[in-house]
This record gives sequence, structure tokens and C-alpha cells, in this order.
Amino acid sequence: MTPPRLSLVDQHCHSVLRDDPTADSFAAHLTESDAPPAPGTSHLDTQLGFAVRRWCPPLLGLEPHCPPGHYLDRRRELGADEVNRRLLGSTGITDYLLDTGLDGGLLDLPGFAAACGGAVHEIVRLERLAEHAADTAGSAEALADGLAGAVREAARTAVGFKSIAAYRHGLDLDPAAPSRAEVRAAAGRWLDGRPPGGRLTDPVLLRHLLWSAAETGLPLQLHTGFGDPDLRLHRCDPLLLTDFIRAVRPTGCSVVLLHGYPYLRSAGYLAHAYPHVYADIGLSLSYTGARAGAVLAEALELTPFGKLLFSTDAHGLPELFVVGTELFRRGLTGLLAEWTAEGAWSAADAERVAAMAGGGNARRLYGLDG
Amino acid sequence: MTPPRLSLVDQHCHSVLRDDPTADSFAAHLTESDAPPAPGTSHLDTQLGFAVRRWCPPLLGLEPHCPPGHYLDRRRELGADEVNRRLLGSTGITDYLLDTGLDGGLLDLPGFAAACGGAVHEIVRLERLAEHAADTAGSAEALADGLAGAVREAARTAVGFKSIAAYRHGLDLDPAAPSRAEVRAAAGRWLDGRPPGGRLTDPVLLRHLLWSAAETGLPLQLHTGFGDPDLRLHRCDPLLLTDFIRAVRPTGCSVVLLHGYPYLRSAGYLAHAYPHVYADIGLSLSYTGARAGAVLAEALELTPFGKLLFSTDAHGLPELFVVGTELFRRGLTGLLAEWTAEGAWSAADAERVAAMAGGGNARRLYGLDG
Amino acid sequence: MTPPRLSLVDQHCHSVLRDDPTADSFAAHLTESDAPPAPGTSHLDTQLGFAVRRWCPPLLGLEPHCPPGHYLDRRRELGADEVNRRLLGSTGITDYLLDTGLDGGLLDLPGFAAACGGAVHEIVRLERLAEHAADTAGSAEALADGLAGAVREAARTAVGFKSIAAYRHGLDLDPAAPSRAEVRAAAGRWLDGRPPGGRLTDPVLLRHLLWSAAETGLPLQLHTGFGDPDLRLHRCDPLLLTDFIRAVRPTGCSVVLLHGYPYLRSAGYLAHAYPHVYADIGLSLSYTGARAGAVLAEALELTPFGKLLFSTDAHGLPELFVVGTELFRRGLTGLLAEWTAEGAWSAADAERVAAMAGGGNARRLYGLDG
Repeated sequence: MTPPRLSLVDQHCHSVLRDDPTADSFAAHLTESDAPPAPGTSHLDTQLGFAVRRWCPPLLGLEPHCPPGHYLDRRRELGADEVNRRLLGSTGITDYLLDTGLDGGLLDLPGFAAACGGAVHEIVRLERLAEHAADTAGSAEALADGLAGAVREAARTAVGFKSIAAYRHGLDLDPAAPSRAEVRAAAGRWLDGRPPGGRLTDPVLLRHLLWSAAETGLPLQLHTGFGDPDLRLHRCDPLLLTDFIRAVRPTGCSVVLLHGYPYLRSAGYLAHAYPHVYADIGLSLSYTGARAGAVLAEALELTPFGKLLFSTDAHGLPELFVVGTELFRRGLTGLLAEWTAEGAWSAADAERVAAMAGGGNARRLYGLDG
Repeated sequence: MTPPRLSLVDQHCHSVLRDDPTADSFAAHLTESDAPPAPGTSHLDTQLGFAVRRWCPPLLGLEPHCPPGHYLDRRRELGADEVNRRLLGSTGITDYLLDTGLDGGLLDLPGFAAACGGAVHEIVRLERLAEHAADTAGSAEALADGLAGAVREAARTAVGFKSIAAYRHGLDLDPAAPSRAEVRAAAGRWLDGRPPGGRLTDPVLLRHLLWSAAETGLPLQLHTGFGDPDLRLHRCDPLLLTDFIRAVRPTGCSVVLLHGYPYLRSAGYLAHAYPHVYADIGLSLSYTGARAGAVLAEALELTPFGKLLFSTDAHGLPELFVVGTELFRRGLTGLLAEWTAEGAWSAADAERVAAMAGGGNARRLYGLDG
Repeated sequence: MTPPRLSLVDQHCHSVLRDDPTADSFAAHLTESDAPPAPGTSHLDTQLGFAVRRWCPPLLGLEPHCPPGHYLDRRRELGADEVNRRLLGSTGITDYLLDTGLDGGLLDLPGFAAACGGAVHEIVRLERLAEHAADTAGSAEALADGLAGAVREAARTAVGFKSIAAYRHGLDLDPAAPSRAEVRAAAGRWLDGRPPGGRLTDPVLLRHLLWSAAETGLPLQLHTGFGDPDLRLHRCDPLLLTDFIRAVRPTGCSVVLLHGYPYLRSAGYLAHAYPHVYADIGLSLSYTGARAGAVLAEALELTPFGKLLFSTDAHGLPELFVVGTELFRRGLTGLLAEWTAEGAWSAADAERVAAMAGGGNARRLYGLDG
């Protein structure tokens, strides 16, 4: 089998930096840590760091694995605009589902669309939406009563929602929708003494947002698995969502389990057992680099092939789009070549599954061809 | 090393359908989901579906990976009896340990024995036994006092027991045997308002059954790990049985951890640490198809080689016996060939371990040669 | 890439037996089980048993995989001193960090140093230190008030501390340092009726020891993951330490997560997310034998390469030093050869990472070159 040149849908990503990153900021975008590296270590001495050093230098005219300093020099020489254009242009991604819930010197949605040259669709982050609403709410009651409407309003232009309840509380939430009285009381507690921009961590309001999103019928992306030190990983096992998944099933909403590492097999089980559950394979590949094929293979155990979704979860650096797509393509191609060579799969099925995971499933789920 | 033609003991399986399945029923037997496939997806687009399409068509005179429709046409043309005979006859299984606790158009035990041509031994499902007892019990007291006796009676002809407490409650049960008073009270609560055929979910009675079975000294099979949406997977981690395993040790009963995916390494640890614990590798291979060798390899990390047990957990379709045996044989042969080629194992040890896992361990544990 | 002859630092090990082991004692040192093998099975029919039979016979002039009886005969013929010398001398370990908290016919620290010919550094086991203090304490108050001082005193000569709180309670401990009053009350409860040599299991005192060690600034090794049946494996997931890791961060202490199997990916995540966390890869390789490369590969997913630490966790038998080093060297070499061959890593980086994991990281962390 020759490596297919898949047309990819990146079903979960973020925008890139407008300006040149400093060396420290570049390294900080390649780790989930919130701190400088330990003495004597480097944030680039990781699978992700090595993957960036493999794939990106040639796109800027350098040798793979050249010293990081050379790469950063060349990057600055070309400038952020040119680097964004070259790297984003290399990936073969045709559609980007952009989570617009992060700040920090990023290109806005039109700016990103111009840089990447693809179709860009918005994913609305629920906690951010609530925090904006809280910033301008006249009263707790108005906030409480207005949240569901704000979610419905966002659904008019977004293709899906995202929740980071995993970060803000953990996935061990009460699965039921809270009552109107509970939501009002929680809104009161939250607004009382909240500083401007204060984060939403209240579990009642987090649940209210999840249920409000579910009732729009749009796909609901949930962070699961690893991330930065804001979360407790064992409280991000997607299996903790089982009762929520059951409860939300009658709404007709689809649940997309993002990332999931190291609980990819659990996410695959949920996608297998429940018709409305889908499993993402994004961040887990970028961060595991040379091991991406082995990690992807675990996701391909129980996940029905019509339920697997590609993404990069890239954020800030266009390098993360490059690495995410290269690792996905090579990992998938390697597995399919092995399985067809030994006769376990037919070549026709392998090609079909590659097209589904790379973009077909996402196009159908988010209605991108609609 | 040439692939050994192992004589296999299938230490956990179910009977097959008497009649031709419809296309929908065929697909439904190839998933743990309880629902039609999601829009645009198919229950056959899975590792298990592809494994069936690889191994079974040639046994009916078709090409591997032929379209599912051709296969089902050919299957109907031959008829269920002939298909059962051909597929079951291809496996090399000499002994079947049949869990008789499922209904739904299946061949009865003598009918299955005639179809498979092997020796068939009964595994009695504890919850089913209790539900039958409840259907005819004169009083709660009579039910409570009679359960242990019914279990002892079943032990006269069965070779082992099985519990699906994982489904009915989760494995996070109180490890201790309940008192007689607790059992009587629980039986009263259960019978009170129970519809005919009503399921047993009461944790006190589930524990009473487990302890009654343990006291017979027969091996006790426990469902662990994945299954259909009736269970919560994170409450089926075999490690949740640790305190029960310790408590039951003095009875002399052996505990067999069934399935276990994705917690195979945890099951291997328990089999390693406790002399009376055994680990099954069945369902996990069928459902992971092209990945079966990789999954089996994890079970071969800590599980002592005298503690690993082959099974298919086939149910309804004879195809599942074919796939379960082919994947086990190829997966095991592949690993042993790799390890002997690099000198890590001797060829003699590899052959010995293959014979143990394929049937020798089960023969010894269940006394099949007695 | 040719296999590098790494100069290794064994960052966690125990001493070896002074005298020849019996056949039963030899086998008992190759399992985490506390019992004779199940009927019809052998403690040598495991990955660890096969690894010992592969690597050790040639060092005593026998064929690899010779029958265990021949090996034990030859071992007795040579005698414990000669066997210890030959096997320890074969490993290429230059520095041993010895946990001196175990008894049972082991060479003392000078005796071990003479046998191995390398530099030996002491790791003090906190629970043992407290049990010694309890044996001689005049009063509960004196014990409570003296523990932190005893830890500080030990820090004058030790290079690090070790805790087996995972065994004695589980890692699901309250993360905060207990108050002085709590420590005094706990010491009173413990001493009240304690038999001489009685084990410390009180969670307040376990936490007090952890915090006392952290405040010395020396690295703190914590048992995580599998071990003998004294522990409950699901209560040894390193992720249960997350809140302790956060709480202890300001002390400047480094936390070393030992063993970790099967939670190696979780340990890797913690080492990735927190600057003061390191991940050990020792016992997990010895016990998984032919699978050691696959297990090591999982540790190499998220663990930053400057945070991975080699060890053997050998105890009693010099064979365990041989197996631990051979499996680490071959596993690492195999992975690096694969990754450099496919271009994912540069050869220079691979060499650098091998040197870091084999010893450089430990030298820096424990100040061995100081």
C-alpha cells in the first residue's frame, strides 16, 4: 500500500501565534508543564520535541534534527507570517474546527483562515461563553436564566461545542441536568465576589452548560485524559462520563471524547458501546512522537472505524499542525500496511477506513458537506 | 517455529443459534452495543467484523474479505446446521466449557454437543440459578435458605460456576460473606414486587452466591472488563476483586478472571500474586482482531504461564469460535516465534507454554482428564 | 546503531544473599507471590524466570535455558561468594543506590560494596527508620518529636529516602503535612500495644515521614504500582499522589516514582507535568522479560528524557542485577535503533538519551559526581 494522501479534517485545534515566539515561549508550547524545565533538562528533549525537529526544519530549508537554535534563528529570519503560511500549507488539512476559547496573542478566526487557506469552522468553548456572560450579567438570576439561550445562540453559527469540565472539576460530575433553582443558586454563589474574568469551576453550572449544549443537538466535545497541571488525570478517565453519556442519549446529541491518553482503550469502549459516542485521536499522537503508531493502534482496537476522528489539538505553533498530521498519516499508513500485508484486512477496507478516520467521519458528524 | 496445531480447551463459551440469523441479528452478534449502528456507520466496520470476514468465508467456499452480503447469502444457502457444523468443525477445540445461562434461540447443551463433535462441560451461571429459584420460591425465607443448597446441587454436574456480578452491581462489592440474617432480608426485598423473570441485582444476594460457589471448591469464573452497556467499565476492573480474592482464599476455590480488557495487566498481576487466581484471554482477542497478538502480549507479561486460559466467549454465531481460535493461535505463535528467534525463550519452553495456555492449564484446573 | 555499553547507575536496589539459596528460596525471589506456586505450576514459568534462564547460565559456564536444576547445582558448586562476584561483575553498573530497609540474610552495605566492586550509596527507608525509633522510644511524645530529627540525621549520609506508604496504606493519603498534635496522637495510638518490630501503617505517621523527608531536600523515592500481596494495586496508581506532588513542590524536594507497572504512562505524565517528578523504569522490565522493550516504550512516551531513571530493584539474587541490566540495555537499544532507522530520531540524540536514562539523570539528581 502506498501512503494515501488523505484530505484531512482537523476536528479540534486552536489558532496560532501572530508574532514570532521567543525561545522560551516556543519550548513552553511543546509541553503540558506550567514551569521551566527541571535543572539539567529541556522541554525539547521529549517525543514531541524530537518530532518537531524531524518534520519542521525541512519545511524551512534546514536539515531534519538540526540544533534547535538553528531552527529558531531561521524561523525568526522568515517571520511568523511566512512560517505560519509554509507550515500550515504543508499539512493537507482542508477543514479546521477551531476552538476559539483561548487567548494569548493568537490570530483571530479570519486571520487564521487567511493563513491556513482552508475552511475554518467554529467550536464554542462552553466555559468561556459562561465567563463572558458572567462579565456582563446584571444579576445572578439573569445569568442563570440566560446561559441556555446564549448556548442556543452560539449554536446558530458554531458546528459544535467543547467543554473543559475535566479541568475545572473532573469528569466525576453528577450526570443529571441540574434544576432551574440549582442553577440560580449556583450562579449566585459564583458571581458573589467573582473577580473580572474569574474562572468557572462550579459543578452545577458546568453541568448546566453540558446539558444546554446537548439540547442543541450539535456535537459536544469533551476534554478527557491528559493535559496541563490544572487537571487531576485520574479524574479525567472518560469512563467517568458513562452515566452522563447514558443520560444525554435521548437528546440526540453526539459526544466526542477528545485526546484521552492514556485512557484510549476506555474511550474506544464507549464509542463501541454507545451509538452517539465518538473518539478523537489527536493530542495523544503529537505528544508521543515515535510511539504514535503504537498509540493509534490502541485506539483502533475497539473504536468502530466510523467513530474515529483525526485532530491535531495544535495551539500557538503551526509546527503542531505539521507534527499532528505527519504522525497520524504515518502511524495509520504503517498499521494498515502491516494488516493488509498479513491478510488481516483487505486493501480496499484499509483505504476506506483511512478516509473515514482522516475526514469522512468528521464531515458526516459535523455536517461539513451540508 | 511452525505454528503448533494445539488441541484447545475453550474454557468459556455459549451455544450457537439454532436458525439462520437475519442480517441485523448477525451484525448485532458482532458488537457489544445494544443499539443500531450510528448513522453512516456499520457494526461490521470493526476489528471483529474484519476478522470474521477474513477467516470465515473460505470455510464456506468464498474469498476472504468478500462483501458481507455475499457471505450472508451463502450462509443462508447452506443453512444454520451445515454452517454450524463446518465452522465448529474447523477450530480444533476438543472441549467446550459452556455457560448455559443465556437464552434466545440457542441450541441446547445436547444439540450443541452434536453440532460441535467435542466434549461439552457445563458452567452454571449463578445469577440465572438464583432467578430460577426465585421464580418458584414459596417464600423469601425458603429462597434465602435454599440458594446455597441449589449451588451445591449444581456442583454435582457442573465443572465450574460463573458470576456476572460485574454487570449486575460492579466488582466493588463488600468482600465478606453476608450473614444468614442479611441474606434473608435481602431475599425478602428482592421477592417483594419482583416480576416473573426479574433480574437479580441485590449486592447481598450476589455476594451470597459468590461465597456459596466458592465453598463448593469448583473454579469460579467472574466477568471482568468490557461487555455490553449494562455495565460500567470502570467498576469492572479486576483489581476491585482484590479483597474478595484474599477473603475467599481459605476456601480452596480457584478464581478465574474472564475477559478483562482493557485491564489485562491487572488481571495478570492478580494471577501472579495469588496462587488461586487464573486469567482468561478470550473475548479480548476476538474484539481486537488484527491487534490480538499485541493484546495477548500484555497478558503474557505478569500472568504465570501455568495460569493463562484460552477461551472464545463465542455466543450465537459459530463464526466467533473460528475467529477466537484463529486469533489466539496466530497471536500466540507470532509472539513465541519472535521470542525464540531472538533467544529470549527456548523453543522447548515456547512449545510447552503454548500447550499449557491452549488447554493444559484448563484441563488441570477443571479436572477434565479426571 | 551498535548497542552502547552504557555506564549504569542503579538508582534503586537491595543487597544480595550472603549464602546459597535453596531451590525454594531461589524461586521465591523470582515472584511477588507470598505462597508456593499453584498445583501443577512453577514460579519459574514466568517472563522473569525465562529471562534469568537466558542470561545467567552462560555467566556460570552453562548453556542458556538449561534446566533450572542444572543451574542451581552449578550455583551451589561455585558458592554464593563466587556467584555474587561473577554476576554482579557482569553488569556494567558503576553506582548502586541501595535501599537498606530489608533484612533476611543479606550482605550488609560494606559486604555488598566488596562483592559488586562499585560505588554504593545509601537510600534510607522511612518506615524502617520509624520502626527503629519506635523500638527504643521512651514515650509517644518523644517518638513524635524525634522523627523529623531522625530523618534529618539520616540525610547527612544518605543520598535519598524511600517510602513504602503504598504497601502500608495505599497512595490515597491526605496530601497535607499533619500537625504536631496529630503526629503526637498518632504516635500514642501506634505505641499503645505495639509488639517489638511492629509495622508502621498509621497514615498520619506515614505522611509525617514523607513531609520530614521532603523538607531535607533529598530526592524522595515512592513505591508505586505492583508489588507483593501486601498491597492493593489500584491504590498504588501514582496519579493518587497528584495532590501530594503539588503540595510538596515548594519544599524543593524531588519525587521519584518507582516501578509503576502497569501505570507507567501515568507516571510519565506526572514527570512531564511537574518539574520535580522523575520516573523509574526498573522492576517493570525484569518482571516482563521478553516484553521489556514494549514496556519501556510506554515509559518513553510522555516522560521527558531528562527524567527517566534506570534501576534493577534487585533483591537477594545477583541474577536480578543481570536480568535488569540486560533487559534495559537491549530494550532501549532496540527502540533507539528502530527510531533512528526510520528517521524519527537522530543517532546523536539517541546516544544522548541512552546516556541520560542509563546514568546521567541519576548522577545529576542524586549529586553523585559532587
